[in-house]
Amino acid sequence: MTQTIKLAEYLFKRLKQLGVGSIHGVPGDYNLTLLDYVEPAGIHWVGNCNELNAGYAADGYARINGIGALITTFGVGELSAINAIAGAYTERAAVVHIVGTPARASQDNRLLIHHTFNDGEYRRFGQMHAHVTIAQTSLRDPRTTPAQIDHVLQQCIIHSRPVYIEVPVDLVGASVAEDSLSTPLQIPNAIHTPAHDQALQKVFDRVYAAKQPIILVDGESRALNIVEEVQQVVEATKWPTWTTTFAKGLLDETLPNVHGIYQGTFDSQEAQDFFNGSDLVICFGPHFSSTNSYSYTSIPKAELTISFSDTEIKLGNEVFRDIPAKHAVALFLKQLELSKIKSYSPYPTLFRPAAVQFSSVHSDGAISQDKLWGLLSNFLEPGDIVFGETGTAGYGSRVMPLPKNTRLFTPVTWLSIGYMLPASQGAALAQRELIAKSRYHDLKDARTILLIGDGSFQMTAQELSTIIKENLNLVLFLINNDGYTIERCIHGLNQGYNDVARWNYLLTPAAFGARDDTFTATAKTWGDLEKVLVDERLVTSKGLRMVEIFMDREDAPAGPLLKMINAQKEAEQRAAGNA
Amino acid sequence: MTQTIKLAEYLFKRLKQLGVGSIHGVPGDYNLTLLDYVEPAGIHWVGNCNELNAGYAADGYARINGIGALITTFGVGELSAINAIAGAYTERAAVVHIVGTPARASQDNRLLIHHTFNDGEYRRFGQMHAHVTIAQTSLRDPRTTPAQIDHVLQQCIIHSRPVYIEVPVDLVGASVAEDSLSTPLQIPNAIHTPAHDQALQKVFDRVYAAKQPIILVDGESRALNIVEEVQQVVEATKWPTWTTTFAKGLLDETLPNVHGIYQGTFDSQEAQDFFNGSDLVICFGPHFSSTNSYSYTSIPKAELTISFSDTEIKLGNEVFRDIPAKHAVALFLKQLELSKIKSYSPYPTLFRPAAVQFSSVHSDGAISQDKLWGLLSNFLEPGDIVFGETGTAGYGSRVMPLPKNTRLFTPVTWLSIGYMLPASQGAALAQRELIAKSRYHDLKDARTILLIGDGSFQMTAQELSTIIKENLNLVLFLINNDGYTIERCIHGLNQGYNDVARWNYLLTPAAFGARDDTFTATAKTWGDLEKVLVDERLVTSKGLRMVEIFMDREDAPAGPLLKMINAQKEAEQRAAGNA
Ligand SMILES: Cc1ncc(C[n+]2csc(CCOP(=O)(O)OP(=O)(O)O)c2C)c(N)n1
Ligand SMILES: Cc1ncc(C[n+]2csc(CCOP(=O)(O)OP(=O)(O)O)c2C)c(N)n1
Repeated sequence: MTQTIKLAEYLFKRLKQLGVGSIHGVPGDYNLTLLDYVEPAGIHWVGNCNELNAGYAADGYARINGIGALITTFGVGELSAINAIAGAYTERAAVVHIVGTPARASQDNRLLIHHTFNDGEYRRFGQMHAHVTIAQTSLRDPRTTPAQIDHVLQQCIIHSRPVYIEVPVDLVGASVAEDSLSTPLQIPNAIHTPAHDQALQKVFDRVYAAKQPIILVDGESRALNIVEEVQQVVEATKWPTWTTTFAKGLLDETLPNVHGIYQGTFDSQEAQDFFNGSDLVICFGPHFSSTNSYSYTSIPKAELTISFSDTEIKLGNEVFRDIPAKHAVALFLKQLELSKIKSYSPYPTLFRPAAVQFSSVHSDGAISQDKLWGLLSNFLEPGDIVFGETGTAGYGSRVMPLPKNTRLFTPVTWLSIGYMLPASQGAALAQRELIAKSRYHDLKDARTILLIGDGSFQMTAQELSTIIKENLNLVLFLINNDGYTIERCIHGLNQGYNDVARWNYLLTPAAFGARDDTFTATAKTWGDLEKVLVDERLVTSKGLRMVEIFMDREDAPAGPLLKMINAQKEAEQRAAGNA
Repeated sequence: MTQTIKLAEYLFKRLKQLGVGSIHGVPGDYNLTLLDYVEPAGIHWVGNCNELNAGYAADGYARINGIGALITTFGVGELSAINAIAGAYTERAAVVHIVGTPARASQDNRLLIHHTFNDGEYRRFGQMHAHVTIAQTSLRDPRTTPAQIDHVLQQCIIHSRPVYIEVPVDLVGASVAEDSLSTPLQIPNAIHTPAHDQALQKVFDRVYAAKQPIILVDGESRALNIVEEVQQVVEATKWPTWTTTFAKGLLDETLPNVHGIYQGTFDSQEAQDFFNGSDLVICFGPHFSSTNSYSYTSIPKAELTISFSDTEIKLGNEVFRDIPAKHAVALFLKQLELSKIKSYSPYPTLFRPAAVQFSSVHSDGAISQDKLWGLLSNFLEPGDIVFGETGTAGYGSRVMPLPKNTRLFTPVTWLSIGYMLPASQGAALAQRELIAKSRYHDLKDARTILLIGDGSFQMTAQELSTIIKENLNLVLFLINNDGYTIERCIHGLNQGYNDVARWNYLLTPAAFGARDDTFTATAKTWGDLEKVLVDERLVTSKGLRMVEIFMDREDAPAGPLLKMINAQKEAEQRAAGNA
């Protein structure tokens, strides 16, 4: 006789098997009974303040943990979260979006229940989610439910992209066959074919012939699960290596041949010359969006590039399909003959990101963008997870040299502001869980650090309360530069629409329930900042700590933003001159 | 020669003509230049903290003002707001959602710019919006732009439902023909036909024959723009009249024949008997969703009902199409011969909502749901706009007797919690603008009052800062009952997922930038509440005032919630007994 199990139990057991330790979300009438099964499955429930925040948190959790999950309620809940799901799709976070939907009877009878459009049409929200997820399933029949769940979850992990599961409230306790649970879900192995060898051969021909080869690591490497292999390639070849913005923090930046982000036309002339002078670029996990490629200026020439992406190797314009990246890079690593490759000696002089010292600033000088990020990097420790939110923080923090095993998240492609505060909540939680499972770089302790502008903070500020409630180890640096400075750089330097309401930011932890002894501090000068950064309460305390850093509203970090804001200022001066 | 005008000028002039005095939204890279034209068009720009909140605010604004508008940026902004647009669709608020999109060149070249999915597909977000808007337009060609804009705006006002306009950033300053602007946009007049007279004749046959006729006013009456006419019908016939939840606050409840909400099986036996004993129900603007109809129990029998909806009159199962409600009700009113209708004398004894007096409670007794709402109703003044958020507040406040010209918003169908705080911001702003234009019931002053639970408050709390920034006249009563009590009523009375983080709610105004002298107060007992409600600072001061009312987490107002929570408690006791 088939062993059975309740549908909800099946779902959560599968998620647990895949490594989901916590689920984010918000309750609602159509998911309450489903929620009854979360904690009994040994999964921690994190109730967020709202669904968008829950979606962002699940994404942050997934980027650290490998996979995350979100539960919302029909219509109102799922649509509130859809922008977060879109971001997870774009930047490849494996988020399982589970929606509690009305009973099948209500749906079939087109009942005019709440959270519908009062028109009997129940399929809209699923259709909308099809645009932002890699696979969807609407559970209707207990016989096929396990297979449906397994299918979408497998798609989720194969593609590292969100999926969508509708669970009608009347099916939560339905009996389903348990047997498939005994076979763990996994990404299917690649089937090796002679075509793979042929492709690799062509790759090696190019690799062994290269006179000035370099490596460019991009951020889809994480989704493709090739980070470790790529790290080994970088270590073995000792070739000059850059990352994109998306990949910064995936590689060990303390290696002497890792040079931080290649910034295209914004990089030093020296780096540009070397990059452009190379005759071969090995590129892993390419994701060439405008932001991630410095407006396309950091993309290597196609004809000089070998790239490893989802299931393809590209050699110039030649595409070898159906060679999954994991398999391809493993083969590459195994077959690579180091004796045949270019060995750089002496190693070329190439810039590497470096910390800035406080000795280089005046202690009563106002804090400015040019040195803040380099100074802040002294604060980083191995194992930290750093979030630099879209805005001056996200651009500024790209130049920070990172200790080992430090992850950094900065704007890549979706760039939805407000994302990083809840995402840091999810990431900090995943970090803590991994530490507890002794799966976090042998560390017993680590922090999550959020660098965020005032405008972005206002978007999702209430999620601070979840950080507090969950007692997560998080240091928040708030950049108070009186509004949307990054937008001032782009357009409307002095327009009112780039202002934001003036908050008392350091009161927010207390308002959101923080303990009285929660550390908060203000820094207006370099001296203030220096003192704060070594303050015992900041350095050694756990839980939330918050520092407000004041900066000029028309100050921007070096790179694209500074270029834009200078152009705006010049235009203003010209206009003033003409007047 | 054709006079021309810039596209953005055209759009905002049209909105201004339609009565849009303020636009809500959030800036973004693809709408910045568009925003340059808002204030010069004489329209106030309200930058909200995030796009969902901006959407909610635009909806609240539209429900008071008749029409509202929202500007977001491509992808991240518009998807963040989509749940608000869905709510506006469901409950018929005329919200114009304008999205600043990438330049046509980027779109046509499928450029991998930020806020896309990095796959060159630009049409997704428009497709998603087609599910939640009544009309959509993607501006591409300056020659047809005015007609496209006019078409969707007309659909918006005809249906009182949201529409969607995509403005590519490179078209903002394009020259378009100005001439159509001289013809105001309006809802086309009905074309009278003999079929209308025939339908009306049938209506009158039933009306004149009725022995116990009653009137049921529902909330789509506002969208159909028939509220004034309905008011006149109610006054002229003097028939017993009830509203639905959706319509409460549309009619003058001080009239002796207006009996508040008909609550179906939750109403008094007396009311049920009279309602069910009637042989004719004239129903205006029906919207029979589960929540709005007390689980369908307040819906009158179809064969005894004459209803006026969008463009139809329904007489039992007979449907007369293409008789727009405005036209139909106007004809009805004009042709109605009062001498022929049932005149109630003596007028039957039927319950009318009444205030509760403080003399009926003990001053040191804890505040409880059974009397709170009746007591709070003493606080209301003519012209107030009252929001009772989904939760115990939304159910409890339904029983409050309303002074003249007082609008009340409580859960109807979409029921997205977090809606009402930003919506009250939008409504308060519309209220102030109408007062300034002397178009608000001859009042020089009026308040917006928000009744909201702790859980709902947490969803969109930051929008308090916009209320503060705009210095809106708003009194906020926060129901602190330690979590999602309405959900505890439905399921999971003691489950952790129905808890919320414990905030220091009264610190939030200060955190969000309120002046030091902002009035805040706590009420735990009836005595506290009595004192607070007459406190000069609450009553006479302007701007934001906030009162936190503590209540038991397992207390619910009479009606469906109380019934459910009692059932849960009994089930718990049974379970405990069995254990
Ligand atoms: C959801 C969303 N809305 C709007 C935008 C457009 N946008 C990008 S950055 C930004 C301002 C960020 O300002 P802030 O966080 O204060 O950082 P700053 O540059 O001032 O340091 C805005 C509004 C966006 N990217 N995402
Ligand atoms: C966006 C959204 N998410 C979730 C829900 C489900 N839901 C309905 S009411 C409610 C709780 C409201 O609690 P609170 O505001 O504290 O009011 P109370 O009943 O406790 O007075 C929830 C979570 C919803 N309606 N909308």
